This record gives sequence, structure tokens and C-alpha cells, in this order.
Amino acid sequence: MDAAANPTDLIAEMGRRARAAALVLASLPTARKAAALALAAESVRAASAEILAANAVDMARATESGLSGALLDRLRLDSGRIAAMADGVAAVAALADPVGQVIDSRDRPNGLKLSRVRVPIGVIGIIYESRPNVTADAAALCVMAGNAAILRGGSEAVGSNRAIHAALVAGLEAGGVPADAVQLVPITDRAAVGAMLAADGVIDLIIPRGGKSLVARVQAEARVPVLAHLDGINHVYVDASADPAMAAAVVVDAKMRRTGVCGSMETLLIHRAYPDAAALIRRLADAGCMVRGDAAARALAPDIAVADTADWDTEYLDAIASVAIVDDLDAAVAHIAGHGSHHTDAIIAEDAAVAEHFLTAVDSAIVLWNASTQFADGGEFGLGAEIGIATGRLHARGPVALEGLTTYKWIGRGTGQVRG
Amino acid sequence: MDAAANPTDLIAEMGRRARAAALVLASLPTARKAAALALAAESVRAASAEILAANAVDMARATESGLSGALLDRLRLDSGRIAAMADGVAAVAALADPVGQVIDSRDRPNGLKLSRVRVPIGVIGIIYESRPNVTADAAALCVMAGNAAILRGGSEAVGSNRAIHAALVAGLEAGGVPADAVQLVPITDRAAVGAMLAADGVIDLIIPRGGKSLVARVQAEARVPVLAHLDGINHVYVDASADPAMAAAVVVDAKMRRTGVCGSMETLLIHRAYPDAAALIRRLADAGCMVRGDAAARALAPDIAVADTADWDTEYLDAIASVAIVDDLDAAVAHIAGHGSHHTDAIIAEDAAVAEHFLTAVDSAIVLWNASTQFADGGEFGLGAEIGIATGRLHARGPVALEGLTTYKWIGRGTGQVRG
Repeated sequence: MDAAANPTDLIAEMGRRARAAALVLASLPTARKAAALALAAESVRAASAEILAANAVDMARATESGLSGALLDRLRLDSGRIAAMADGVAAVAALADPVGQVIDSRDRPNGLKLSRVRVPIGVIGIIYESRPNVTADAAALCVMAGNAAILRGGSEAVGSNRAIHAALVAGLEAGGVPADAVQLVPITDRAAVGAMLAADGVIDLIIPRGGKSLVARVQAEARVPVLAHLDGINHVYVDASADPAMAAAVVVDAKMRRTGVCGSMETLLIHRAYPDAAALIRRLADAGCMVRGDAAARALAPDIAVADTADWDTEYLDAIASVAIVDDLDAAVAHIAGHGSHHTDAIIAEDAAVAEHFLTAVDSAIVLWNASTQFADGGEFGLGAEIGIATGRLHARGPVALEGLTTYKWIGRGTGQVRG
Repeated sequence: MDAAANPTDLIAEMGRRARAAALVLASLPTARKAAALALAAESVRAASAEILAANAVDMARATESGLSGALLDRLRLDSGRIAAMADGVAAVAALADPVGQVIDSRDRPNGLKLSRVRVPIGVIGIIYESRPNVTADAAALCVMAGNAAILRGGSEAVGSNRAIHAALVAGLEAGGVPADAVQLVPITDRAAVGAMLAADGVIDLIIPRGGKSLVARVQAEARVPVLAHLDGINHVYVDASADPAMAAAVVVDAKMRRTGVCGSMETLLIHRAYPDAAALIRRLADAGCMVRGDAAARALAPDIAVADTADWDTEYLDAIASVAIVDDLDAAVAHIAGHGSHHTDAIIAEDAAVAEHFLTAVDSAIVLWNASTQFADGGEFGLGAEIGIATGRLHARGPVALEGLTTYKWIGRGTGQVRG
């Protein structure tokens, strides 16, 4: 660990090298990038023993320092996980390349031919925690979209990340991608994160991958644009017109399929006139969910717990859900506007007009009709892989994949036009 | 002036009302927005006398306080300028509405039908200086794209802005747009700007309209995303293959058509092998431009001034240009990468391969081949009107018009899909 380096100077110097590499990457043809990523995937596979050895050292230190079981599981690599990581890199190489895509073109009356063309963003900083596979996943997505990546992983995974990074870069270089296209920040203290967040003009975009405290710090401190989501307080609204079997299946899936993912339902809203509300709440409880209801919900299902005001603003990330009975569609929309996190919200309804109103009125990155909120995922959306889900309003919303890692430029081709 | 209000509380309260208005605006059909803007244009025309009276008071106070002639001219309204302002509002009403546009759609193998649909951003803050017409221009663009606007104009134009704002809102309300869709910050001290810049989650986007010191402050302090450009250090590179008559016409236009606009050329780069370099430099000087050259340029045109190192990084916004002789295309690209501001850069060349390399390698919002940098303008690009030009990399680059004032949401329509 090059702890002697001043973090600001270090990031500035890494950024200069990343910018130079990004300029090379920006004009590499798709086939060259894909071939280099295929070599990187192969190189990760070939370095399995080194990566496992480094991971064993990280695991031993983490165990000694009392890291929790869940965090240890995130840190742990085995040959299956390394193979999956390599497969992930190879899969990114097969995705459609957004760079060079013409978004629109217009011929002006003066003969100037204008087009908007997708180009890479430039230098992307990824700040992540204990999962070492992010090193490979994030690097692959950045490179395929023509960007240089500056990676800052968690201190507990330092050896694993270095081994994965070394393997990746060896493969990329063999494929003609500059080594500086993927750089790992060599210091793992918090000052390195601060220097990245302050590196306006050096790093073009920061993507945090990790828990809420990391994302909150990044959003609070960053001078560089950030794509992220802080919360996934997602709602399923069951309309009076909902099909009961569908409502039960979707609600149970939305909450219980995986309770720890950002797309899981946290609050169930039920129309006052929905006839099967009591059975729906019971289905959720029977599936193992702790249900907390408002007074109207408890009147229907007296054995559920009491939801207090904090419940409506809580992302449980656990087998817990809050349930409210609402007067109508507008009340559901208002509840979501007041308590949601602009992530993913769904309506279950047979009435198409009601559903379309919901889809328009709910201001979230993803709005779904008759489908589970657990679909909030780049892979499920057919984007191939995602670098994260964004709940901000600018640049990219929802699952962010290759296209979200690009921007555009205006290109004008003329024959000597002057404005005169 | 409601100077008693705490600026943070004031902006929070304006933001709450703006958010509510934005939710109404987001689902207004195009025809309703257009009709309301047409009424707003009519209302501004009808309020001409009141606006002129308010402007006369602003002008008298500004003259007394010693405002410069250029600033007084920006502040001054007459019946022609008011008519032009009203025409501008009416013209925005005629633009294509981006809201509701389907960006892409994909049917998933499980039957889920996904689409990405353009939606308004939400609440946009506009911070501007002495030109009162920005009150109308910015409000019209925000409303047409379905956004609420919080406008903070310069203190010297306070009366003019209030009169224009009152007229606009009267017209919009008559057309069914909530009055809170366009709000004017009632206090004009700097604290109001600070409160807007800090209003993360209240204001979704800030667009500064004004001089460099305003933009620099906004970029330095904002916690809210900003679309802006700080500098327009634009280059014209004349390749060895350039047509001399075209090169001279474009270079003179790029620099001299209007020297004070952000799209004007500041630095001319000439390939060492371009045969007509001396004549080109003379043409620029003969057009009234003060030329500052490097040693090689001065060897060709000994009577020009010496460019020092600061010249390459200077936006003159005046009849001054720096000229450097470069060894080749790569040197031109490297010069632009080192000194440019990612705004607008042009190449003059007959060699298409050289030109295409330039268009790819130069990392600017706008890159032009055989055309003047003075085309950097939303109107010239066929966008109808622009709210500004952005040189950042995220969300929107180059001229920002209606589309740049929107974002998108993912809409998924299913038949009960669960992730399982």
C-alpha cells in the first residue's frame, strides 16, 4: 500500500493517466474492445490460483478482525465464483456497443449535416465495498463503453482486488487496451474516497456500489456527478380491479423472492374496495413476512403488527412489509409521492385506464403494471448487465448499463458554411 | 421584496409548490401546454405598458447606481423587445413536445413489455442576470417540457422581471397551467442563490444564464446538478488539405461575426504544411482582429503580436485571436485536449479521413467539419430554442433545448409476471 502518497495528488495523477487511456479507448472499434475483454476473462480464469490465494489472506485477516458472517460471505471467493466473474466479463464483451451509435441526424437548410453520436463519458470512478467481483464487473462495463475506470474497493478485499485487477489488466493489455484504462487505487483509507469525490474535472462520474452508508456519504460529499440509488422504498398498489390470484402471486414475489435486494417491495397499498384484502395480507404473512398495518389493515387482519409513522419511510431489506388501505388511486399515488424513493413501484389492476394513470402519475425510475418489483434489474430488462440502478433524474434512470455509461457529441459536417 | 423570509425556508416552500405544479404539468397534453403558452405570449404583449413602466424604474435606478452601458443595454426593454419576447414564447408553444416520446421498447421473453418514455425532469431552477427576457424564454421552455421553473433574476431587473412574470402567469393560468409552475424568487440578494444551489431534492436541475463569474459560482457551490458552460475556448484547425478560400471565410466568420458569443473562435491552429497560412493570418487581421501568434506564426506574419502561454487558455470574447502553427493533426488534437473547454471545435479540411479522425478524437460537445464555430446555437441546430449550451459530459451536451429538459422513466406492462 502506497500510503505515503497524498490522496489528492494520487487521484489527479491516476486521472491524468486514465484520461489518456480513455482517449485511446474512445476510438477503439467494438471488435477490439470485445477481443480484449475476452482475453481479460481468460486471464482471470487462468489466475484463479493466485486470486484464491490472495482471497484466503483477505479472509483470514477479515475473520481475525471480526467481520460479520454476511460480510465474510461477500468477501469470499471460490473457484465457482471466479469462473462466474470471468463469465461475466466475457458476457459484457458480447453486448451491443453503444459507442458510435447515431442518436439522431438532421440536415439543415444551409446544407450542414448534423448528427448526435454516442461517445464514452471518459473517466469513471467506482467506489465499492467488500465484494471483489465488482472489480471485474465494473471494469468490464466501463471498458466496453469506452471509458477508463478508477476502482476503489474496500480495504478488507485489498489482496483479492489486486489479484483480480492484475489478471484483468494483463488480458486487456494483451488485447491492445492501455493498462491505464483500468486502475485500482492503491490506498484504501477513507481519504482516497474523499479525493475521488472531490476530483471534479478529473473523474467525470462516480458510481458507488455498496451499502446505504457508502452511498449516502458519496451523495453528500461528491463534487463529481454521481449515479446511484440510496433507497428502494418500493410500493405495490393493489387496485380495486385487481385479479386476486395475480395480486397474491405478485405481492408475495415482490416482497419475499429476495428481501435484501433494492427492488423488493417494502409497502403494500390496497384499495379500500379491493374485495380480497384480508386474504392478501394473510398470504403475505403465511409466506413468512412480518406485516405491519395501518388501522384499516388491522381491522381486516387483526393479528398483524401496528405500523407507526416511520414504517412508511423505511426500507426494511428484510421479511417485513408495511400495509396501508387507501381510498383510491389518487391516494395511492399521493402516498408514493410522499414516501417513495423514486425507485420501482407497481400497480396490480385489470382496469387499464387506472393502470395507465398510475404509470404516468408515479414519478419513479421504474413503474410496472401487473408485474413484480423484483424485475428491477438490468439483466431482467434485457440490458445484459448493469453497473447499478439510478434514482436521480438526470442522465440515466433505473438500471444503468452500457448506454448509461456513454454520453453524446454533436457532429456537424459542412461544405464551408459560415453563419454570416 | 419579502426580505424577511429565510432563504432556505423560502426556497423549500417554493419547491414544494413547484413540485405539486410539476406533477400536474407532467400529465398535461401537448395541446394544453401549447395553448397556455400562446395565452402567456398574448398576455405579455397585452402587458407591454406595465412592463415598460417597470423597466423604466429599473433603468433609472441602474443608471443612478452607475451600471455600465453594456449592462444597461441588456436591462433595457422597448416595445420591439417585448414583442420579440412574446414571439419567443409563442414559438416555443409550436415546438415538438418531447414528453411521452417512446425512446425504445423491448418485449421480454416472459411477456413483460418494457418501454422507456420521456418525462419532465420536475423542478428546474434558472439563475440569471440582467436580461429580463430570460424570465419569459426560460419559463416557456420549462413549461413546454412539463417542468416547473423557479426563476431567480438579477436585482437590477427586479421590477421588469415581476411585471413579465405576472403577465406570463396570468396567461398560463388562463390556459389551465397552475400558477406555481412558474415562480419568481421574491428576494434578490445572493443568499437566495445559495439556497437554490443547496436545494438538493427540492430543485432537480439548475441552469445558470449569465457571465462567467455567475456560472463559476454556481458550478463551485451547487449541490444540485447543473447544466452550463463556463468557457468557450473554441478552436479552428486548418489542415494542410484545407481549401484556402473556405478556410479564410470560415475563420473570419468564426472569430469576427460576433466576438462576444460563446461559439466564437479564440484560437486558430494551422498545419505547418498549409500553404496559405500567411494570407490566412492577414485576412483575420484585416477583418479587424488583433492576432497573437507563436514563434512559427510570427515567422509567417511578423507584424502580429506575441502569444504568451496564457493566451492558449484565454476566452477573449473580443476581436482577439491566438494563432499557433502545429506539426500535424495529432498536435492539433493534443492542443485542443490541453487548452480547449469542450465547447465547439472545427476542422477545415478537404481530406475526409483527416476530418473524420478530428471529429472522433476531439472531445467536445460540438465538433464541426468545414463550418464555422458560430453555428453553436440551438436555433441553428434546428432545436427551435435553447436554454443554454452545456459542456459537461452527463445528461445533455451542446445546445440544450426541450429534450434536454426531460428525462425518462421505464414503464413495464405485464400480465402477472413474477421473478420467481
